[in-house]
This record gives sequence, structure tokens and C-alpha cells, in this order.
Amino acid sequence: MLPDAIQKFIRVFSRLPSIGPRQATRLAFWLITSSKVGLVEIQDALSGLTQMKVCPRCFFVYDSPAAMCHTCDAPERHNGIYMILEKETDLLSIERSGAYQGRYLVLGTLTKTGVFDDWQLRRLHALQETITTHEPNGIAEEIIIALNPGTYGDLNASIIEKEFIHRAKVITRLGRGIPTGGEIEFADDDTLAHSITRRS
Amino acid sequence: MLPDAIQKFIRVFSRLPSIGPRQATRLAFWLITSSKVGLVEIQDALSGLTQMKVCPRCFFVYDSPAAMCHTCDAPERHNGIYMILEKETDLLSIERSGAYQGRYLVLGTLTKTGVFDDWQLRRLHALQETITTHEPNGIAEEIIIALNPGTYGDLNASIIEKEFIHRAKVITRLGRGIPTGGEIEFADDDTLAHSITRRS
Repeated sequence: MLPDAIQKFIRVFSRLPSIGPRQATRLAFWLITSSKVGLVEIQDALSGLTQMKVCPRCFFVYDSPAAMCHTCDAPERHNGIYMILEKETDLLSIERSGAYQGRYLVLGTLTKTGVFDDWQLRRLHALQETITTHEPNGIAEEIIIALNPGTYGDLNASIIEKEFIHRAKVITRLGRGIPTGGEIEFADDDTLAHSITRRS
Repeated sequence: MLPDAIQKFIRVFSRLPSIGPRQATRLAFWLITSSKVGLVEIQDALSGLTQMKVCPRCFFVYDSPAAMCHTCDAPERHNGIYMILEKETDLLSIERSGAYQGRYLVLGTLTKTGVFDDWQLRRLHALQETITTHEPNGIAEEIIIALNPGTYGDLNASIIEKEFIHRAKVITRLGRGIPTGGEIEFADDDTLAHSITRRS
């Protein structure tokens, strides 16, 4: 019933994150029958992505002809501080806040088991190399482990902390407490406990 | 901060149905950094879609060299019965049930206002033409209006019914009641009322 090309489309697109077979099916028909976004425009947007490079130092993406990304290349950001985070989108959020001037390591989404993939271990190793090569005595000023607070984030953070214990003067995590606009009445107990012990 | 190619990708993909800027952003990074599904494979899947044709009679998609789709072309399905439905995926569900042997008209997603788009009016007109040309005395045996039950579906169905009142011996809608596996206790009042008046 369903033409091969559509079946193939559904198969390929269902494997993308948070797109299921149902959404892929709807998408296929929408793309064929709608003129709102041309297929050509989408193919164009995809080819654009093939030009992207992954920075060998922080593993964020970039498109300049330089050997590394803008953040890793910027001398004014070399303040001995490194932030380890999971997702590229986490990095974008941190940058948007304007509150951070150091460097990054994008680690990729971590499992809930505390076991890191090989490529994630290689990324952690790359950061150790960077610190050894570029920081005085091979010790960074600070490493900020910016994982989402919670059971799994805490577990993974403590594993990472052990790896870097001798590579930084201080290892920190992001502050925890009641978010701006949040209400004490509706905060969960763990958040409230953190907001009290980390009061300032 | 964000390379142009990624911004472009987010702009284009955010316009696809049920994909927002956030999901498009995550998708971009995933596609660049993951090797699970190659970009090439995705581009391939998209080119496949450009080969699809829309059947001039029922407006479902097909890929054969024929002048119309398999369903419209099959003589054994010419039993004078036509089913009008909104989405291609609705048609797939009906076919999967194996309970229908007639022909179709895919009308596209209807608005909630009871106002049809020009291309939807053209599709309804195409069905009137088909019936005039291919049915004895220009009158079909039956037209099944298979819109989702509910306020908007009912409104649109009654508008379509008026258009076809002289084109079919009988105009029906899909049965309404408690779904298989559903529980009386949890059925809403309207469904229950339908299940009682349409008991059989």
C-alpha cells in the first residue's frame, strides 16, 4: 500500500531522536503534499550541516576554517576555567546567560548507569590533555561540572570529579536552589534543602 | 555563537509539523555529532519523496508509472462506494483494518471553522466529477464521510453531506461508540449516548 520511498523515509526518520514512526509518517505525507516548505529547501539545510566541523578541543560544532572553535581559539577566554556539560544546547544556554567566560567540554548525553561510552572517555581524556598542555603545572584553576541536578547527574558528576581531582585547584557544580520566579510553596524537598544549605 | 548552517537548519525544520525550534536544534546537533544515521541516508530518503506523485482521483500518493494510484486503478474496488477522509494516515488505518473495499477521497486536514481551502474544494469537485463519469446515472451507491467524531468533524461532515446529497443513494458516517478494549465506566457521556442510540 505504502510506496517504497515513503517506507524508506519512515524507516530513516524514525531513528532520529524524539521522532517516532507515526510522526515520520505524517511528516512524509506533509512533505509530499504541502508546498509550505519545499523539499529542496530541506535538502539544502541538511547539506549545510555536512559542512560543520566538531572542535577537537571542546567538541562543540563550528564552521570556520580555523583548527578549533571560536571559544577554544579566543585568548581572552583562557582563564584556566573549564565547564564540562552534556549537550551542545546546554552550552548555548550557558552562553546566553552571559555569566561565564571560560572554556567548555561537551561530553554528550550520559547514560543513567554511570558507564561512559568510549567516545565520551576520549573527550574526557582530551580535556586532561588540554589542561596538561596549557595550564601552569598542568593544573586548571577550576573545573565546573555542569550536569543536570538529580540522581543520575549527581552520580555521573562524582565519577567525573574523581577523574579530575588532581587536575584542578577546585571542582565545582552549578548552584542548586529555587529558580528565579519559582515559589517556595511548590519547590520539592530536595530543592528546598539545597536552597537552605547553599544559602548566600 | 551558532554557525549559519545550523541556524538555517533550525529555521527550516521548525516549520515542519510538530517540530519546534528546540527539537530542531537538538536534531541539528544530533545529526552532526552522531553517526547512527548518516546525513547522506537522510538526504537519500528525502530525494525518494520527490519521486512521489499525487493521484488525481483520490489524492493519495503513489509511485507507479500509471496515471492514477493502485486503489483507483483496481477494477475490483469499483463498487460504487467512496470514503471521504482527512489524512493519508487515516486511509492507511482504514486499509489496515481490511474491512473496506471501496474507493477514497483524501481531503486534507480540515479547519475548525467549516471553511474549506480552495484545493480542498477542488478535491471535492474531483469526486463529483468521478461519480458523474463513472457511476450509473451519476449517482454513487454510498458515500462514507470518515471524519473524526466530535464538534468540528460533525460540522465539516454536515457541510460535505450537503454537497453530495444528490450524488449518492446513501451518505453514512463511521460508527460511534465504545472502542474495543474501552470501559463503560470511563467513556464520556457523548460516546455513551452514541453507544446506546446506535446499539446493534
